[in-house]
Amino acid sequence: MSTAGKVIKCRAAVLWEPGAPLNIEEIDVAPPKAKEVRVRMVAAGICGTDIKSLDDKNLGPFCPIIMGHEGTGIVESVGEGVSTVKTGDKVIILCLPQCGECNTCLNSKNNICKETRLSGTHLTSEDNSRITCKGKIVYQYIATGTFSEYIVIREISIAKVDEDALLEKACIIGCGFATGFGAAINSAKVSPGSTCAVFGLGGVGLSVIIGCKAAGATRIIAVDINKDKFAKAKTVGATECIDPRDFEKPIQKVLFDMMNDGVDFTFEVTGNPETVANALASCHKDHGVCVIVGSLASWIQLNINSQLFFSGRTLKGSVLGGWKTKDEIPKLVSDYTAKKFNLDPLITHTLTLDKVNEAVQLMKNGQCIRCILLP
Amino acid sequence: MSTAGKVIKCRAAVLWEPGAPLNIEEIDVAPPKAKEVRVRMVAAGICGTDIKSLDDKNLGPFCPIIMGHEGTGIVESVGEGVSTVKTGDKVIILCLPQCGECNTCLNSKNNICKETRLSGTHLTSEDNSRITCKGKIVYQYIATGTFSEYIVIREISIAKVDEDALLEKACIIGCGFATGFGAAINSAKVSPGSTCAVFGLGGVGLSVIIGCKAAGATRIIAVDINKDKFAKAKTVGATECIDPRDFEKPIQKVLFDMMNDGVDFTFEVTGNPETVANALASCHKDHGVCVIVGSLASWIQLNINSQLFFSGRTLKGSVLGGWKTKDEIPKLVSDYTAKKFNLDPLITHTLTLDKVNEAVQLMKNGQCIRCILLP
Repeated sequence: MSTAGKVIKCRAAVLWEPGAPLNIEEIDVAPPKAKEVRVRMVAAGICGTDIKSLDDKNLGPFCPIIMGHEGTGIVESVGEGVSTVKTGDKVIILCLPQCGECNTCLNSKNNICKETRLSGTHLTSEDNSRITCKGKIVYQYIATGTFSEYIVIREISIAKVDEDALLEKACIIGCGFATGFGAAINSAKVSPGSTCAVFGLGGVGLSVIIGCKAAGATRIIAVDINKDKFAKAKTVGATECIDPRDFEKPIQKVLFDMMNDGVDFTFEVTGNPETVANALASCHKDHGVCVIVGSLASWIQLNINSQLFFSGRTLKGSVLGGWKTKDEIPKLVSDYTAKKFNLDPLITHTLTLDKVNEAVQLMKNGQCIRCILLP
Repeated sequence: MSTAGKVIKCRAAVLWEPGAPLNIEEIDVAPPKAKEVRVRMVAAGICGTDIKSLDDKNLGPFCPIIMGHEGTGIVESVGEGVSTVKTGDKVIILCLPQCGECNTCLNSKNNICKETRLSGTHLTSEDNSRITCKGKIVYQYIATGTFSEYIVIREISIAKVDEDALLEKACIIGCGFATGFGAAINSAKVSPGSTCAVFGLGGVGLSVIIGCKAAGATRIIAVDINKDKFAKAKTVGATECIDPRDFEKPIQKVLFDMMNDGVDFTFEVTGNPETVANALASCHKDHGVCVIVGSLASWIQLNINSQLFFSGRTLKGSVLGGWKTKDEIPKLVSDYTAKKFNLDPLITHTLTLDKVNEAVQLMKNGQCIRCILLP
């Protein structure tokens, strides 16, 4: 019996206040309004950003909130005027929208769509949510909120994927994989035969390595202070792995000397401001490019010696790997289906939604690279 | 009578200690050795870097030193193995060499040639100078030292220019003009129809404006706290001029709002670290590029909010405008001869070498954009 047009009662992982565990709650998901889509979630990935935000007091005003921003699902019903997806379509959630109408969408090669402004409101429409719990409006993390059995989301924040897409794993393409892979391919534009260094070997860092390899880099140095991560880094493409603590010299001098006056491309994926300066200093003075991939808290100041820029060095930001999300993320899903890259090494755990707190703990303890939640 | 092979006695402006005035001294210029060239100087430009260095205590160990690093001249004689210039050729001095053999010269699109390492020694060969004064070795500023009637310089640090080159003015192409013009053309790669903002309207800043205009930018905002500079900025291509002190909002907010969510390309040409952060923040969040053109003292730390990089923004360094000097600076000289750009608005004063201290004072007082010295 069709659920279209009716309120759906289902379960979601809800944060009631920062620092609290997630609660599995029964929620009411109203039908989608104009330009909105209701999706039955099939899988959700847990990303480092979720983990950081769980304890972030700034999230307080947006509680209760459904966490999660990576996901795949199947369209349950669509609101008025929705044209790009229909009931039954397989879709991937886009944590950065592509409205197709703003200056960025129309004229830029990059991807910071003007509608991204809603991300910080944690609401899927201007001033409201279609989801309630115990009579209260429920926010959706980064205007997505994928740790749920059903969600309502804007049409510009989902994209149709192929019928044969492997939704249970492809969900991590929506943020973690796209972010790292695209940082190498789009933001840095890694060139064939080049040298790369990746600081931080979590799921995003490993995805950067996959991107560097796909772009034809011949040396890819993986850098982390946890040697347990080295085997996996080599599996996905690192040619060498180094622990900065094994050297007397600072890591930037180690890399600068190792790589013939510096590395062509470096990637900061630790979220540590000092590592940004080190990654930049590791770059080749003539043409090195350092991409900041790790998200840093908004109050953090970068302290960088000006001499690093009396050179041809470049420091740049990258959000979601620079992909035009609605156009390009489905292509990445197709490439995954076609085995152009392998996500298996990144996905170490798969748990059901009701075990979300266990999954969070695995991530916090560093026991897990990427954990998938199945509703 | 040929002077080749003989020591030439002539005059130069010598700094005996930082902070002292320049002294016009009689110097002995020995013949060039292998791969060196002796040049009779025709003109030298005074650049802001010279002015800053005159009072820099770090220059103490390199005194006595002939200042200046912009210049044009005529080859007097060449040492063994010199093949790219011959006696009588018109040449321009390159304050960044192009050796043609290092990894950068062979494989990079940028210009930080490995031989630039000699710049900091202020010597034109590994461990010696061909110039002496009162029995003492005389250093040559940035391994050039153009405030002299004759100099000896490495072949890789000069380039032949056309017979019809206007040496008296073209000397400023060697540093100031190339630095600003190239920052727009090569480093930022300003695109047709784009918007630009230039912070700081000295000779280099004006050259950036000329570059932005040549690249087809449709709006070029000139920013300075000295309104006296606005008329000249408009002459060379600025479409609007603003003084940050005329606004209650910080300049980055003024520009961000003025320019439809930020400027496509911004240029820091003041040498002020706070302006770097402001110029970056003025950039479009999606794709803005900020180029650091002004040289900052080596001990200066840049303090930049990390959120500026949670975006598609790029911050990059630029040295001598990214030109492959020996190959490309002569082409700029040809373009000047062909009137593709006009240097006249930049050259406000021309004095003889013996008036060098007067010229320095004009620069220090901001009464002069570029001053040319004629030996």
